[in-house]
Amino acid sequence: MTSKLNKITVIGVGLIGGSFAKGLKQLGYVEKMVGYGRHESVLQQAVKLGVIDCYETDMALAVKDADLVLIAVPLGAMTSIMSQLKPHLTSEMILTDVGSSKTSVVDAVKACFGEIPSQFIAGHPIAGKEKSGVEAACVDLFKNHKVILTPTDETSSSAIKLVTDLWRKLGAEVSEMTPEYHDEVLAATSHLPHLLAFGLVDLLNDHAELGNVFQYTAGGFRDFTRIASSDATMWRDIALNNSSAISKWLKHYQAEIAHLIELVDNQQGDALYDLFDQAKTARDTHILKKG
Amino acid sequence: MTSKLNKITVIGVGLIGGSFAKGLKQLGYVEKMVGYGRHESVLQQAVKLGVIDCYETDMALAVKDADLVLIAVPLGAMTSIMSQLKPHLTSEMILTDVGSSKTSVVDAVKACFGEIPSQFIAGHPIAGKEKSGVEAACVDLFKNHKVILTPTDETSSSAIKLVTDLWRKLGAEVSEMTPEYHDEVLAATSHLPHLLAFGLVDLLNDHAELGNVFQYTAGGFRDFTRIASSDATMWRDIALNNSSAISKWLKHYQAEIAHLIELVDNQQGDALYDLFDQAKTARDTHILKKG
Repeated sequence: MTSKLNKITVIGVGLIGGSFAKGLKQLGYVEKMVGYGRHESVLQQAVKLGVIDCYETDMALAVKDADLVLIAVPLGAMTSIMSQLKPHLTSEMILTDVGSSKTSVVDAVKACFGEIPSQFIAGHPIAGKEKSGVEAACVDLFKNHKVILTPTDETSSSAIKLVTDLWRKLGAEVSEMTPEYHDEVLAATSHLPHLLAFGLVDLLNDHAELGNVFQYTAGGFRDFTRIASSDATMWRDIALNNSSAISKWLKHYQAEIAHLIELVDNQQGDALYDLFDQAKTARDTHILKKG
Repeated sequence: MTSKLNKITVIGVGLIGGSFAKGLKQLGYVEKMVGYGRHESVLQQAVKLGVIDCYETDMALAVKDADLVLIAVPLGAMTSIMSQLKPHLTSEMILTDVGSSKTSVVDAVKACFGEIPSQFIAGHPIAGKEKSGVEAACVDLFKNHKVILTPTDETSSSAIKLVTDLWRKLGAEVSEMTPEYHDEVLAATSHLPHLLAFGLVDLLNDHAELGNVFQYTAGGFRDFTRIASSDATMWRDIALNNSSAISKWLKHYQAEIAHLIELVDNQQGDALYDLFDQAKTARDTHILKKG
């Protein structure tokens, strides 16, 4: 186990950064949890909520002598944060992030630093909720959730070890894969369903000639579209940063829908039953059993 | 308010029929709640669970002297049940159903009886869960849920009144519309998302070359696909019985996905933001506020 750290700096104290900070602070694994962000009012609120010990609005002061810097900003702000951070990065400082796409983050780091610094380890906690912001931060957000780390050849083992340890302390199950495989899997399991949910609400909203059809929805629709209440900025950035994998999976899904239309149009009851039944079995096996 | 009924017969004692029976029985609005179904073991279980008072396996006995007969079988069994029921229908008996598509039910009734009997009123409670069967029946399933009735010109006002009263007793909010409008709205708000959820699980299940990607899913995927754990027979029948409206909405959705692909491929961040933000606003306004 890692011994207590002197200082962790969290850049971007929203749902994810805030939950990370609050959890480690509450567990007592750090002397000083420092927040950095664009909006001082958010940072003040974070102190009030016990998420961080204090904050800085100057990047140099924020990361000075930090053992670990966690970048938890929308993907679209990643490059700008990296450039601000660059002059202050020391070899003793471990650097990680929580971005939902990993190839683009690794590319941004390479572009900023010329090469991937050995103390940088890209990461992505597979956790969240449709509420965003520091008010939604909670210490058990990552408990029993997966955190994926995507080290490259340059990444030092001490960086991997420290970041792995910290996520485990928060109750997460850490696994490693390449940035490319991460982006493919997440496009399929997370980015695709988010875009599908946004798309369905958008579609029904656009057909106002039917009246307000939302009034006739029930629990199934509410659950199906829960992720369409997610933050628009975050999802715009994911769509832009993991565009090729997302586009590929949207096209796979188009083919799936074309197949469904064919079955429905041709009244193929047996094939429809088999498709529904196999999907139900797969979900009951893989998702319900996860608890 | 309707005075206490002597006898209600529920044909098909599953989640919906069972919840209807159990609720009215518990509220004391009927002397005798009778069940009828294909499987005697289910009917015995229904008696044990307090869902019905007794059961019959002979249709003539089941509906004899019933004030109301509720048909709660999958849409695919509707025509067969109607034919069995036909010789025993009296003018004093109100007849209703709970099928998820209404044009096909009205057509089946017309085909069976030659014309729509004035005591028939088609209905559809917008409630359910992914668990099916009499064990899942519960008295508050319809509480604060909509029930849609789709009367035709032939329907008597006394039939509408009785069935409306019974659903209201179970806490439902009853509204009326044409069978055609019902099928259009339900295709958009319920049938489409169900097929989309089945389709997503089917798609990921078919791409086994990525490994078991289900292990990397989180709460968003679980909620999005909850309805893919629904009963395959029921959904096959809905797909077959409301095929033209479903096919139409699947095609609308295809266009929506084509639009999303275009935005993603062309890195149109502003348009993606607007689409996500408007969808989030629509959902937060219409769905979250419903509570």
